[in-house]
Amino acid sequence: MAGAGDPSPAPGAASGAAATPHLPFGDRLAAAIAARESQIVLGIDPDPARLWADAVERAEHARAQLAEALAAAERAVAGDPAAGSGAAPSSALGHPAAPRTAAAAAVLAHSRALIDAAGPACVAAKPQLACFERLGFAGWLALEAVVSYAREAGLLVLADGKRGDVPVTAGAYAQALTGATETPFGPAPGLGVDALTANPLLGADAIAPLVTGARAAGAGVFVLVRTSNRGAADLFDLRLEGGEPLWERLAALVAGVGEPGPASGLADVGAVTGATVPEHLARMRELMPSTPFLLPGVGAQGGDVRTLAPAFAPGRAGGLVTASRSIANAADERGGATADAARREAERLRELAWALT
Amino acid sequence: MAGAGDPSPAPGAASGAAATPHLPFGDRLAAAIAARESQIVLGIDPDPARLWADAVERAEHARAQLAEALAAAERAVAGDPAAGSGAAPSSALGHPAAPRTAAAAAVLAHSRALIDAAGPACVAAKPQLACFERLGFAGWLALEAVVSYAREAGLLVLADGKRGDVPVTAGAYAQALTGATETPFGPAPGLGVDALTANPLLGADAIAPLVTGARAAGAGVFVLVRTSNRGAADLFDLRLEGGEPLWERLAALVAGVGEPGPASGLADVGAVTGATVPEHLARMRELMPSTPFLLPGVGAQGGDVRTLAPAFAPGRAGGLVTASRSIANAADERGGATADAARREAERLRELAWALT
Repeated sequence: MAGAGDPSPAPGAASGAAATPHLPFGDRLAAAIAARESQIVLGIDPDPARLWADAVERAEHARAQLAEALAAAERAVAGDPAAGSGAAPSSALGHPAAPRTAAAAAVLAHSRALIDAAGPACVAAKPQLACFERLGFAGWLALEAVVSYAREAGLLVLADGKRGDVPVTAGAYAQALTGATETPFGPAPGLGVDALTANPLLGADAIAPLVTGARAAGAGVFVLVRTSNRGAADLFDLRLEGGEPLWERLAALVAGVGEPGPASGLADVGAVTGATVPEHLARMRELMPSTPFLLPGVGAQGGDVRTLAPAFAPGRAGGLVTASRSIANAADERGGATADAARREAERLRELAWALT
Repeated sequence: MAGAGDPSPAPGAASGAAATPHLPFGDRLAAAIAARESQIVLGIDPDPARLWADAVERAEHARAQLAEALAAAERAVAGDPAAGSGAAPSSALGHPAAPRTAAAAAVLAHSRALIDAAGPACVAAKPQLACFERLGFAGWLALEAVVSYAREAGLLVLADGKRGDVPVTAGAYAQALTGATETPFGPAPGLGVDALTANPLLGADAIAPLVTGARAAGAGVFVLVRTSNRGAADLFDLRLEGGEPLWERLAALVAGVGEPGPASGLADVGAVTGATVPEHLARMRELMPSTPFLLPGVGAQGGDVRTLAPAFAPGRAGGLVTASRSIANAADERGGATADAARREAERLRELAWALT
């Protein structure tokens, strides 16, 4: 279903790693990591108040592209060519759209510049959905354009939305992110990403539609097992009546639902395991021997790449190190031009992680 | 922050219940329930493959309105009036937009018809974000229009997205749903809803930004305590080392973070407590004496309104009964014209719940 009507090549194909998007995600991930010699995931968390200055200036170009896409959508909905030329802009939505659309254009320009600078040192891009949703439909349009741009740059794309809901709604999220939706007007393609993050609190029946939907598209799901924030201890570390922490139960759920790719042995259901708790990694690897780990929390949140070796026990594809603010804002820490500093920080992380195995 | 640049009245004002959107959510909720004599929440979960047939036909009108909004956005981003007239529609996003935008227009028409029919028997509307996200940016645009329409109909609006993330990202979700985002082009207003649903798995520091953001806007947060799906038992019912189930720990978290409104005594942080497990309601009420309960699972999921009395122990505003498919698809069960059947089912639920207290 995923990619129906989407002529752009699979990320694996673009990087020479895989011929079809329907290979199992574990194999696609392992091939992409080998081809790009990187385990780094570029987090894209744009804050409109803290964009790269030259990207805001360059937003003129992106604005034209956003406007083009909006016009195309308009032509698609309106048989009547006069539609849209009538009433005041505020009448349909109750507020002026200008700051949102201008900010969305700037966010898009920033994200593209970030991909241009740091993408070559990375294997994947991870847009943070919240950062786009806060600009409404214009932000979601920018998100779609960022996903396209990252795929064209040969990156896998991980949608970071930590979705989770009852089964029927989880199925709708699967359609939104890795599938398509049947409509009376033909199939409507979703975001078409290679993987998504998911929240397992609602139980196995709520995770299943996400995994089934992703698997049908050759995509993967990264399930929260133990996050990197300070408050994660409140629930993930709670001791159950058998004495084990809750996160061990989540690890067992993840290990049970993933299917290993035949080429790599790497499963198509991964685990989000914060880089801020490296002391748990060996036990996590024991519980989830073939699971790819997505490791957030390096840099801005205090995690250190050099402590992550247990994640890579099954091989280089066993772990993905994500970094967002520490790359985008590297110039603040290390000086130099914004894009150069981002490129150097991504390359530094790439070398550190690659040297662990 | 919320409603910056938004000229539409607060839902409370529209229903005569509250003069300002910055009254505490608990008081706004209690006043709205009293004014509308209803505790029913109209779930809006549109499936493009199962829309009301006459709504799809009527979508012509909504298409024009969507097109108008898209054109307004286009004018806002493009200083250049020629922008958007150039290349093929597929170039920016990699796939044709037509099925999505047509389906979004039909979804909007369906949602409006549903609000027209069943809204008068309800106190709030609860759009399911996944159902809009699966149509991409066009779906998000339809969501914004549905929110506006529901507010104009005098309904409170609850955004059901079950969001949850690390603190910095939770802050972005708060901006997206109840706040605004600072941008170099001025403040960008978010969705401007009256309440949102949240997933507490990431802990107290991840819930805090959602509550803080909502509170500043006079909005509320409904935190998952025990959901209505079958798999909810996997984690919510796990026994902790002290012997109590995990959901009791979540209930304590919810009770601790809410602040009661001075007029109603009702807190501004609520709990999602599935109507499919009424046997837990008395204990939940004990642990969360002033918390409004959002009770999903009536109808399609098998819950029965008549078992929910303990939710209403603090008064009529103690519980909100949500129903989606059982209202929208009432004609399948009960016959009659689609809109009439929906209206009758909503009214039936309203009377059942109102009679409990």
